[in-house]
Amino acid sequence: MGRKNIKIGLFGFGCVGFGLYEALQKTPSLKTNIKRICVKTKNKQRPILNEHFTFDKNEILFDNEINTVVELIDDADAAFEIVKTALQNGKAVVTANKKMIAEHFTELLDLQKKHNVPLLYEAACCASIPIIRNLEEYYDNDLLESIEGIVNGSTNYILTNTSLKNISYNEALKEAQEKGYAETNPLLDVAGFDAKYKLIILIAHAFGIVTSPENVFNIGIDKLGELELNYAKEKGYKIKLIAFAEKKEDGKIVSFVLPKFINKNDKLHSIDDVFNAVKTKSYFSDTQFFIGKGAGAYPTASAVLSDISALTFDYRYEYKKLNNVDSLENDNKVFLKILLRYDLNSIDELKDYFIELNESYQNFNSGYIIGVISLKRLKFVSTISNISVVLFDVVKQVEFVNKRNLNKSLEVA
Amino acid sequence: MGRKNIKIGLFGFGCVGFGLYEALQKTPSLKTNIKRICVKTKNKQRPILNEHFTFDKNEILFDNEINTVVELIDDADAAFEIVKTALQNGKAVVTANKKMIAEHFTELLDLQKKHNVPLLYEAACCASIPIIRNLEEYYDNDLLESIEGIVNGSTNYILTNTSLKNISYNEALKEAQEKGYAETNPLLDVAGFDAKYKLIILIAHAFGIVTSPENVFNIGIDKLGELELNYAKEKGYKIKLIAFAEKKEDGKIVSFVLPKFINKNDKLHSIDDVFNAVKTKSYFSDTQFFIGKGAGAYPTASAVLSDISALTFDYRYEYKKLNNVDSLENDNKVFLKILLRYDLNSIDELKDYFIELNESYQNFNSGYIIGVISLKRLKFVSTISNISVVLFDVVKQVEFVNKRNLNKSLEVA
Repeated sequence: MGRKNIKIGLFGFGCVGFGLYEALQKTPSLKTNIKRICVKTKNKQRPILNEHFTFDKNEILFDNEINTVVELIDDADAAFEIVKTALQNGKAVVTANKKMIAEHFTELLDLQKKHNVPLLYEAACCASIPIIRNLEEYYDNDLLESIEGIVNGSTNYILTNTSLKNISYNEALKEAQEKGYAETNPLLDVAGFDAKYKLIILIAHAFGIVTSPENVFNIGIDKLGELELNYAKEKGYKIKLIAFAEKKEDGKIVSFVLPKFINKNDKLHSIDDVFNAVKTKSYFSDTQFFIGKGAGAYPTASAVLSDISALTFDYRYEYKKLNNVDSLENDNKVFLKILLRYDLNSIDELKDYFIELNESYQNFNSGYIIGVISLKRLKFVSTISNISVVLFDVVKQVEFVNKRNLNKSLEVA
Repeated sequence: MGRKNIKIGLFGFGCVGFGLYEALQKTPSLKTNIKRICVKTKNKQRPILNEHFTFDKNEILFDNEINTVVELIDDADAAFEIVKTALQNGKAVVTANKKMIAEHFTELLDLQKKHNVPLLYEAACCASIPIIRNLEEYYDNDLLESIEGIVNGSTNYILTNTSLKNISYNEALKEAQEKGYAETNPLLDVAGFDAKYKLIILIAHAFGIVTSPENVFNIGIDKLGELELNYAKEKGYKIKLIAFAEKKEDGKIVSFVLPKFINKNDKLHSIDDVFNAVKTKSYFSDTQFFIGKGAGAYPTASAVLSDISALTFDYRYEYKKLNNVDSLENDNKVFLKILLRYDLNSIDELKDYFIELNESYQNFNSGYIIGVISLKRLKFVSTISNISVVLFDVVKQVEFVNKRNLNKSLEVA
């Protein structure tokens, strides 16, 4: 089979864009070239000749010679407009923009179908880890039970530094930004939104369910404090920001993004710095791990390169599982064992939200409760200021040994 | 795109065959069924109805209704005859037989081409880890630098037990066989042949080079003794059987199977029991790991299932890199830092084979030498009885600090 000739129009020439440019130079066998690069800022010193650049997106979007658009800009709204027009004009698209995909999943599926063109986005999930391709191709059956992953490189870098170097959260964040591991808007990373966008993409390819950001609950690492960091240290845990999705027996999906205590026997325990890892669990093959760098120009560029290469063989996602009619589980039926740290709020009020209490601790300025709470109540509790939440695990069997007499006023339908 | 209808003729109904049977029951969406199963032994109690079975291979190979042959028997020679006839008759084939593939690679490539039918064999390499698919699809470029892996589940199980439970090598081997993790002929596993067959498959898909078993050097774990096991323990290493292949700058491939000291910072250190792991290193994406169960009925069956599913979408390996003209590196130009343990052989004679000596130790009944040796000389040394070899690393820069005056009679052209 002959390889298709790819002529690229590139949007964005930040560190990933330049990384891609270099990667293409290193892969002559791909016989692919970048015809034009659209950038925003004029009069900026750039590492390659000015003649390659344009400031007018239409010079790419309406150039018939360009058959592939690679979109690597920051702004998700502008990215969507570019991708949409490109697909409408029959161009294949490669993008790394998880926010854009998660927010416009259904439209992007429709556009691909209507205009019969592929949209690939391996770089949007865990940079260099080929997880979408594996969910799409290798786990294209009904046997996948769960995915759990460290999917955000910058928070993992921050957490690693906070725990290993004993520096503060703010210092670690600053260092991550200086190294180019954190997004321009740090809240996207540290509050767990970036991880959530990736989880939404993973859920679509793992379980065939398209959902939107407001349906998946996320807590980030930005509220983590000394008490729970020390708790983790004392018990031999590490805290990692985890994106989780699991298919229950009735086909319903449980999903969230939460900081989680990871014990030493879990292979996720050794995933530090900007490494990402996705753990899959399936009925017959048991647990599998995909590990690789999840942030940085080159790892991201290498995933983009792989998508471009796949296009030369007319590859496209088949979205084989999308016919599944399964849906998200009711938050009221999801139970989580968590540690809830509070700063001298009313502990008694907080206790009432738990369906089971296991431990509580208090010193002169803060305390924690360990117990089981429903996801629905956790969503509410998480809006209280000065609290922090770390997950132990999803509680599968709702057999609560110390089941409390629930406060009637908090009962949820 | 519609899915192709698959009607299977299955050869072999051992634990993997039965695992596949169960997996197919669990995946109704695949709409695939097994029409007939060919087995060798008559009058054996089997978990499903007798009417499914035949003892005549031609009842599958010449049944026009069967479009896919799944070959899961032990005997590599018999397997090749089955696979060959199936391909000649235009049937797609899925196999898990690494020995058969490694020994007949070129013929199998020719048969696929001539009869325009796919042969898939994900289960032949690291059972449940989708490594062939990833090498084929995701690393389909020139940027892959090396692959290094724990690719044999039973030796890893034995090594884990030997080191953790402090039981002898023989006890650990017996336990592995009882659990069904070791092949019928244990030498295939413990002497590193199974790992070598897998490495040959990996090299073809990673670097586009087809080589044969006699060209890849292997030392297994069957000669490991107390001295080097204790050495590892004292230094905080684990010994793992490693399959290694690396592309040098001139395109030449260095490859071998050897026991290797793995230090705590290497993610391969935590790969225990029957888990396998493949570490890839590529120019831009840095280090990546694929981890999963590498032995056992279900993990293997799940890989076979995935291949069957891929066939419903007309998937086939493109062998995209096979045009590469690179070849294996001259053994004389490959330098390895090793520990060589001997049982009171003539240490002086052994020392002469080393190009650099770093350490030596001797007690009343055995001793070891640590130093740098060429692969060519190692091949010769390994034929001496009562020695054992553990790799530290490939030596890249041949800048020997303590370079010896080589014994002229051992100089190799």
